[in-house]
Amino acid sequence: MPSTTYVALLGPGLVGRAVLAQLSALPQFRVVAVANSSRMVLSSSSVTADALKTDAAVPLAYGSLADHVSSYPGASAIIDCTASDAPAHWYAAWLARGISVVTPNKKAFAGDAARYAAIRGSARAPTGLSTRKDAGLLFHESTVGAGLPLLCTIKDLVATGDAIESVEGVLSGTLSYLFNEYCAPGNKAGFAAIVETAKSLGYTEPDPRDDLNGLDVARKVVILARAAGLASLTLDDVEVENIVPATLRDVPSADAFLKELPKFDAEFAARKAAAAAKGAVLRYVGRVELATGKATVKVAEAGAGHPLAGLGGADNMVVIKTKRFPRGLVIQGAGAGDAVTAFGVVADALRVHHTHAFEP
Amino acid sequence: MPSTTYVALLGPGLVGRAVLAQLSALPQFRVVAVANSSRMVLSSSSVTADALKTDAAVPLAYGSLADHVSSYPGASAIIDCTASDAPAHWYAAWLARGISVVTPNKKAFAGDAARYAAIRGSARAPTGLSTRKDAGLLFHESTVGAGLPLLCTIKDLVATGDAIESVEGVLSGTLSYLFNEYCAPGNKAGFAAIVETAKSLGYTEPDPRDDLNGLDVARKVVILARAAGLASLTLDDVEVENIVPATLRDVPSADAFLKELPKFDAEFAARKAAAAAKGAVLRYVGRVELATGKATVKVAEAGAGHPLAGLGGADNMVVIKTKRFPRGLVIQGAGAGDAVTAFGVVADALRVHHTHAFEP
Repeated sequence: MPSTTYVALLGPGLVGRAVLAQLSALPQFRVVAVANSSRMVLSSSSVTADALKTDAAVPLAYGSLADHVSSYPGASAIIDCTASDAPAHWYAAWLARGISVVTPNKKAFAGDAARYAAIRGSARAPTGLSTRKDAGLLFHESTVGAGLPLLCTIKDLVATGDAIESVEGVLSGTLSYLFNEYCAPGNKAGFAAIVETAKSLGYTEPDPRDDLNGLDVARKVVILARAAGLASLTLDDVEVENIVPATLRDVPSADAFLKELPKFDAEFAARKAAAAAKGAVLRYVGRVELATGKATVKVAEAGAGHPLAGLGGADNMVVIKTKRFPRGLVIQGAGAGDAVTAFGVVADALRVHHTHAFEP
Repeated sequence: MPSTTYVALLGPGLVGRAVLAQLSALPQFRVVAVANSSRMVLSSSSVTADALKTDAAVPLAYGSLADHVSSYPGASAIIDCTASDAPAHWYAAWLARGISVVTPNKKAFAGDAARYAAIRGSARAPTGLSTRKDAGLLFHESTVGAGLPLLCTIKDLVATGDAIESVEGVLSGTLSYLFNEYCAPGNKAGFAAIVETAKSLGYTEPDPRDDLNGLDVARKVVILARAAGLASLTLDDVEVENIVPATLRDVPSADAFLKELPKFDAEFAARKAAAAAKGAVLRYVGRVELATGKATVKVAEAGAGHPLAGLGGADNMVVIKTKRFPRGLVIQGAGAGDAVTAFGVVADALRVHHTHAFEP
């Protein structure tokens, strides 16, 4: 490649470090800044996450970080691998001054609709709305299904004039695992025991209620819905089935919750049996219907012929039904994990690089 | 968009006309040339396929067609929707002079390795190898699985440093339908009767042996293998199971072939029964293994847990196994048909447009 793309990486946690590792093998990138929630390192040569522990680190200041990364004679990108809402407030300003934004952080895309509109308006087409040549590019493939090619496919369908009818799927690796295992042929374990196993395998949040309340899935539904054309849909519009039993929502600790959960095994078993009587299995499904704008997140029954019935492991699966794909365009695979999330981020960063690579 | 991409369309058949219809709704494109195998129309305003029937049509000359499309002050692209080998001889020259090439035509990508290398060498990165700013872009997503996002995903995986282990799938809508129907629960029809039905539905080539010989699938395996990194693999390297019974290969007509085919129903039934005894179904699978370069196209058994066992209709399905996706990244959907093939072509054309849109 004839040019370099200069990168600032925010949030060198597990995903951020995997991004840095993948970028380090690609000569077209130079990471010139790394920041965590309080400190940053600005450098003219390549910088690693470890530099944050050294005297080179200074207090975090988003303004000077952006000045630094855009001071080089090449394309610049800020890669936000934090889970924080703070950087999202800066995206529009960064994009407007020509810095591209690449992120697996859901906050900007599932959050406030006005802020989302401002960000999209500041970003250069095709993923944003600005037609200004000097605007930055915006990519966030890894906000849903990690590196699975979901948002790019939905955006291609929309851009080429297809009519999207619905987007639905299993959008959480945790909830995929829980229901795939629970409804697997021959499983005798109760729902609570499966949650316990998932927690011990590290598949759940420290408090599994943060998975079971469905909010993470609902945020992903908002992102998919907006990509499919419902730009003003918000989290409040999503009807969410919280599968944490109502009486356990205020139990003070995760351990206490897990101790109480087996009391609800019979309720879950009854739903599983009702599905099985129809030859179906239970899946935790997020869905948006474009014509009505109806968005739901709930336990649903998938019959033997349905693609979601074939899920295994902790895979995500999304089924996009359109006028051209009435049976559905289906994409399935690992939708969580550091390496696959970083893959989606770095593939997006390469899109930024290739768009800019041949500019004067 | 601030600029226009000027297009010459070769081959206004069913797919070509669907491409023209999708392009006509997109203001960023202007189709200034249309050609069939013998004639062309060059125009300064938008031109349709019907112009070929008028006095505006002149004898086809690829040189002046390229001169014409590249004479405008904007990006230019030649979209080859022919099934001919002839345009492929021109791709490298067109790319070298800055004209982008977008095509669903398999000839260049499954054909001669030296010509393929010359084409890739002339095309601008990321899909080609040239780093020249004035080289054209090359996209051919619709050569495999129509508009399904297969090649772009494989190329992203390779570009970000993943190690692809294997790519396998059902790559023919025709052969998907035949084996899905034949092995569907409760099907009593013999294999020959299913072929007969598929032909009457228009799912097969006029002579179904052109599907059953496996060559079309083998060409797609070559394209996938090359995208995954085996640049010099050729059709000769693919081990193909031709399922046309040997004694029927030289029968002079399709009708005579179909009349004889029921004599082989027992052979097919025996294979189906052998698979069923293991809880598996038959699928016609193309596969390439990256470590060994072994490429095969054959009737394979898919067990109950395998994604290919869940196929229905005439869907294509591809399973990409990599270091990061050991369970496989799976993409499934309609892999044939005018509208979905055109979708892949037009999405590629939009990539050309967006890359050029902000250039000076």
